[in-house]
Amino acid sequence: MREPLLLTPGPLTTSLATKSAMLRDWGSWDSAFNELTAGICRDLLRIANAEASHVCVPLQGSGTFAVEAAVGTLVPRDGCLLVLVNGAYGRRMAQLTEVMGRAVQVLEFADDQPACPKALAAYLSVHPEVTHVGVIHCETSTGLLNPLQALAEVVAAEGRGLLVDSMSAFGALPVDARRLPFTALIASANKCLEGVPGMGFVLVERQALSAAQGNSHSLALDLYDQHAYMARTGQWRYTPPTHVLAALRSALDSYHAEGGQAARLARYRDNAEALLAGLRELGLETYLPPACQAPIIVTVHAPRLAGYGFGRLYQAARERGFILYPGKLTALETFRVGCIGAINRADIQQALAALGSALADMGWQAPKECAA
Amino acid sequence: MREPLLLTPGPLTTSLATKSAMLRDWGSWDSAFNELTAGICRDLLRIANAEASHVCVPLQGSGTFAVEAAVGTLVPRDGCLLVLVNGAYGRRMAQLTEVMGRAVQVLEFADDQPACPKALAAYLSVHPEVTHVGVIHCETSTGLLNPLQALAEVVAAEGRGLLVDSMSAFGALPVDARRLPFTALIASANKCLEGVPGMGFVLVERQALSAAQGNSHSLALDLYDQHAYMARTGQWRYTPPTHVLAALRSALDSYHAEGGQAARLARYRDNAEALLAGLRELGLETYLPPACQAPIIVTVHAPRLAGYGFGRLYQAARERGFILYPGKLTALETFRVGCIGAINRADIQQALAALGSALADMGWQAPKECAA
Ligand SMILES: Cc1ncc(COP(=O)(O)O)c(C=O)c1O
Ligand SMILES: Cc1ncc(COP(=O)(O)O)c(C=O)c1O
Repeated sequence: MREPLLLTPGPLTTSLATKSAMLRDWGSWDSAFNELTAGICRDLLRIANAEASHVCVPLQGSGTFAVEAAVGTLVPRDGCLLVLVNGAYGRRMAQLTEVMGRAVQVLEFADDQPACPKALAAYLSVHPEVTHVGVIHCETSTGLLNPLQALAEVVAAEGRGLLVDSMSAFGALPVDARRLPFTALIASANKCLEGVPGMGFVLVERQALSAAQGNSHSLALDLYDQHAYMARTGQWRYTPPTHVLAALRSALDSYHAEGGQAARLARYRDNAEALLAGLRELGLETYLPPACQAPIIVTVHAPRLAGYGFGRLYQAARERGFILYPGKLTALETFRVGCIGAINRADIQQALAALGSALADMGWQAPKECAA
Repeated sequence: MREPLLLTPGPLTTSLATKSAMLRDWGSWDSAFNELTAGICRDLLRIANAEASHVCVPLQGSGTFAVEAAVGTLVPRDGCLLVLVNGAYGRRMAQLTEVMGRAVQVLEFADDQPACPKALAAYLSVHPEVTHVGVIHCETSTGLLNPLQALAEVVAAEGRGLLVDSMSAFGALPVDARRLPFTALIASANKCLEGVPGMGFVLVERQALSAAQGNSHSLALDLYDQHAYMARTGQWRYTPPTHVLAALRSALDSYHAEGGQAARLARYRDNAEALLAGLRELGLETYLPPACQAPIIVTVHAPRLAGYGFGRLYQAARERGFILYPGKLTALETFRVGCIGAINRADIQQALAALGSALADMGWQAPKECAA
């Protein structure tokens, strides 16, 4: 049987070209490898039009490591981070800030409601102690798109720093540093850039990084030190995930060949449209209002079906060659389907057929008014 | 031209089988992937005969991340770590402890001198505030082997905890938890196990880990939390480097097929013997006394040669298909040659021939009494 297709938000389905780039061992001291790293950093800055204003600091580890590194490096020891929370990744940003012993506050919104710029402005106006604001670009826990531009303008108008967790959005949703003011933007290799997992990166405002020496609570997660070493030597500070980088180089080549951010977004939108339409045809309901549904991942209400469990659906879909993703909402039974990765509308349609067949086997009949 | 062979201490030369294992995308939620992780952890414990006494906690990132995680998780906030330093990795362990704000002391030895168990015993007897001792098993900065068993016995007799950085030794040099008392042993995928870089792991004494909740200065680097999540769900807490794990699975299969630790050590010893003999024939002097030279990596004094620079030698060796490693001593001009990775005596001999030819081109003539 063929390998199953991943409909997950990273690790996700990558191209064979990207995986094949890992069939080589690189010396981490080698100048060819240093050029590979430098080229990747340049490309990542360019995707955000941030070459003039920011530097790219890559970091070993998963995305969370990069988020923690950004907070620990950029929020001073006597600073205070306000996190806008409408899902699990916002909560995690607040949690990691608390663990490192930095002051943190939370402004909560419902899980199906975008963070509100007006509420943020009102909050900041009475909380001068807040030095930085943390925003999740796309809340992958549901697929919700936060209004990044409007939030960033409020933060800038109030003179605070902005940390954007764009993990599941960067590369697909547009980010333009020339009009979006941000201190740091965090993402990773294995989401919309379609690389493999093993490294994150942070686009950091040059000035903010220069001022950040000694802030970090951690040596391994110190972006100041990581960047200073790389700027001085061209090398990673500690052993880099060489194969992951080679895969990302290849993935970025494909990204450019496809047509960059606009083309990537167009394909994901197409995937998401096909997915939403297909789910409707199957009689399944999605969780988010369309206005804040990002074309990244879709949360679906579990079918009301005797004996339903996500484990059963997962197995049935897997046997048909597709890997679904569990829900991440605590109060509601849901599952998720990703729209990202090296997949297109045809793959989504096959996945929908598999999902329909799996559900039919479980006794599901689409409610009448929705049936195809 | 063929890809150059890496004579470096990790990333290193891996087998094609190991790299090919990365030609597949794994869902991080998938039970087959969970089994892969569980099997790797079991194997790593078994290599150290530690199944009964320890757990294996894998961690995303480079080896340093795992070292920092072990210190931060296992040395309580009011604890004190004494690091035995005779090279750069001992210094780094002390540095990362200081950055996280934990009390740290250092007992220094010369870079070419093993840490002395008697000196350690004397030190501990007058420093009751020391709760843990940090030891570098093989100091990769020179290739020096520290007397782990004797040091561990002193630490145990004094009732302190022991953190062993066995990054460049584990898998080749024997570690037997049934007779070597240690709180934690840290290593990574990409050294003597011959996997690719992207993850480290820590073998942690069960009791010490149970007592470690809330110690960590960092969420991402909290081994208690990492282990608790994995024990509960079978999954990694944050996105795992799936392809790196698949490569490690394959590398461990090769490890067992080769004959495990004894066979791995025998091959590396054979590599090191061939290397040391060949270097002598070329008239080059090695840095360490033979008694403390580990069969992992060899530090070589730069040839006294007008116009010598490591960059030139590196390029010349690279053009001949071999990647050398720079020295890491500040006061002496040296370079290093690794003995580890998917290489054998024949590869070492070809590397020596290439090195000889490169040096001859640079005008090197072996001092008479040493010439072949
Ligand atoms: C928005 C967001 N933030 C943070 C993370 C955490 O990344 P990782 O799982 O790589 O640590 C994710 C992962 O899905 C994410 O989607
Ligand atoms: C003994 C020792 N400790 C720690 C490290 C750090 O590992 P990494 O470079 O993967 O962070 C190394 C790497 O070579 C090492 O040899």
